[in-house]
Amino acid sequence: MVLSGYKHGGDIYRNRVRVDFSANVNPLGTPPEVREAVRKAAEVLAPYPDPYCGALRAKLAARLGVEEDAILCGNGAAELIYSFALSLAPKRALVPAPSFSEYAVALEAAGCLVLPFPLVRERGFRLGEEILPQITQDVDALILCNPNNPTGQCVEPGLLVQILERCRETGCLLLLDECFLSLTDREAAFTLLPALRPGDPAVILRAFTKLYGMAGLRLGYCVCRNPELLIKMSRFQQPWNVSTPAQAAGLAALDCGDFVRETLALLSEERRFLEAGLRELDIPFLPSEVNFLLFQGEADWGEQLLAQGILIRSCGNYPGLTARDYRIAVRTRPENRALLAALASLKNRKEE
Amino acid sequence: MVLSGYKHGGDIYRNRVRVDFSANVNPLGTPPEVREAVRKAAEVLAPYPDPYCGALRAKLAARLGVEEDAILCGNGAAELIYSFALSLAPKRALVPAPSFSEYAVALEAAGCLVLPFPLVRERGFRLGEEILPQITQDVDALILCNPNNPTGQCVEPGLLVQILERCRETGCLLLLDECFLSLTDREAAFTLLPALRPGDPAVILRAFTKLYGMAGLRLGYCVCRNPELLIKMSRFQQPWNVSTPAQAAGLAALDCGDFVRETLALLSEERRFLEAGLRELDIPFLPSEVNFLLFQGEADWGEQLLAQGILIRSCGNYPGLTARDYRIAVRTRPENRALLAALASLKNRKEE
Repeated sequence: MVLSGYKHGGDIYRNRVRVDFSANVNPLGTPPEVREAVRKAAEVLAPYPDPYCGALRAKLAARLGVEEDAILCGNGAAELIYSFALSLAPKRALVPAPSFSEYAVALEAAGCLVLPFPLVRERGFRLGEEILPQITQDVDALILCNPNNPTGQCVEPGLLVQILERCRETGCLLLLDECFLSLTDREAAFTLLPALRPGDPAVILRAFTKLYGMAGLRLGYCVCRNPELLIKMSRFQQPWNVSTPAQAAGLAALDCGDFVRETLALLSEERRFLEAGLRELDIPFLPSEVNFLLFQGEADWGEQLLAQGILIRSCGNYPGLTARDYRIAVRTRPENRALLAALASLKNRKEE
Repeated sequence: MVLSGYKHGGDIYRNRVRVDFSANVNPLGTPPEVREAVRKAAEVLAPYPDPYCGALRAKLAARLGVEEDAILCGNGAAELIYSFALSLAPKRALVPAPSFSEYAVALEAAGCLVLPFPLVRERGFRLGEEILPQITQDVDALILCNPNNPTGQCVEPGLLVQILERCRETGCLLLLDECFLSLTDREAAFTLLPALRPGDPAVILRAFTKLYGMAGLRLGYCVCRNPELLIKMSRFQQPWNVSTPAQAAGLAALDCGDFVRETLALLSEERRFLEAGLRELDIPFLPSEVNFLLFQGEADWGEQLLAQGILIRSCGNYPGLTARDYRIAVRTRPENRALLAALASLKNRKEE
């Protein structure tokens, strides 16, 4: 938890919020099977959780086609970012900007110098080959988010493989955050997982929180085929970091194939709907591949919308973005319609 | 989670266990109100948890009579041990032996040299005044567990105050683990909380997991009236470490006064019952103040009992204890009776 200065979306606790567009969670919420698993787990809370997450890791390993020992589970993916930073303790780390701010926060807590790699607005904040020569022996770690939060842009698979190759050559650690990849239509094409070889200095991060509406419950994992790195990471965690309800929920979630298909169909349609609406309003935005997108408005829109109970993510605290940049989650049709209507009236007010 | 080498009690996942005496959790399990709070929270898992644990900290602060900003919540108390070790990064830490092994594991992960302070079997493993001159400016931290796990012995309140005074003088950090104190009859007399002054280099650790049967759900907190230390600790944690169900459960637990009274009455009676049974069997044990106790048997008793589905904690991996030392939790009458019967037959087998 934080004592002050929370800098993310989703703070529905200190705001009056009717609709939360600021957190990038599945608009369909939590699958009924997952809720049921948690209700059942409520009957067995007294014993300690399985410190090995045995059943969950076995099921994940079979699903992903990797060995069980290549999987480490966390109390949400966020915990694993800290485990990575604190245990592997890179001294200099390259982090694209803008990107998810916890990378830098965790690295700096670990005493690491964060070298921001600026993504360029004019190129849609897409990562290009310019990153490759930056991966040198002077850089201990590279953190990438694919698709990137908050821009919604994917890294080209060919470039990713080149990046991995450079990391192999230089020994630079790669933390690749694929937490949102399962919310795109192209997970199979864009994941680096099949390219991982035993011994690679790469950690791929995944979450249950976003796709399965489990942000409140917390569950993430990472895949790393270098046992030395993964054991080191696990040593910086307590033995019981993943609760019994979270482990049960993860097992249930992996059987929710229909829910995932329904989610992807909805997101694809609603992303188009939101983008068409923004285009009609002449609000500049970045076409996205995932369940959130970035648009530009006026610096007071966040406040104006909040007065109507609509929370969106002001991006003024991201390096490379400004107070006029906003991130919104793709939600259900009635919610998206309400947001577009509210944006329309802000836009008209401005033009009057 | 751990990838290998789990060294605690409570592993009911890789053992066939009918009764678990190896984990020190309330034998009454989880109060119905807490289970109900978790079932309700199962309906709102999609939003992120409150990163400030606002409602829970407010209720705790009122209950404990400290300021809200003196409280940091964790994903179980175990997480806070790691936050302490990693963020405050003591270079040399004094830790009594035997004691809870995660202190040393966390400190060593943080690169700290652990200086074991041996507790003496002949004196019932009680902490004495000999600890005072060891608290010098060359020691960065002292970790104490009160009552101590696995010995069940409390530190005399007068000695604790002297220890705190020494820590104030030398600037030595004090991590005082009071996680089991609420399971003794003398919490009010033995807690150091009222002695804490603003600015003290002391962190008092507390858990919901043991008293309220929530080990599977995870919830702990610490109290520290030195804001600089607490903010530092929080920076080494992710913002969403305490799940929504855990926060809800904590709020519900704080209203379970009757459950606590019932627990203490049961523990007091069953501790006496177990102790009388051990005495009758002529099995040497250490009279305890809390919900577990230490006895001496033969090195194969753990295995023999497990073959009957009874899991007890072999203490061979505690420095200062041997494979003949066992820790058992105080449980309900039928369970305690079953354990004593099984011990009786082991004892008779030996004497035949």
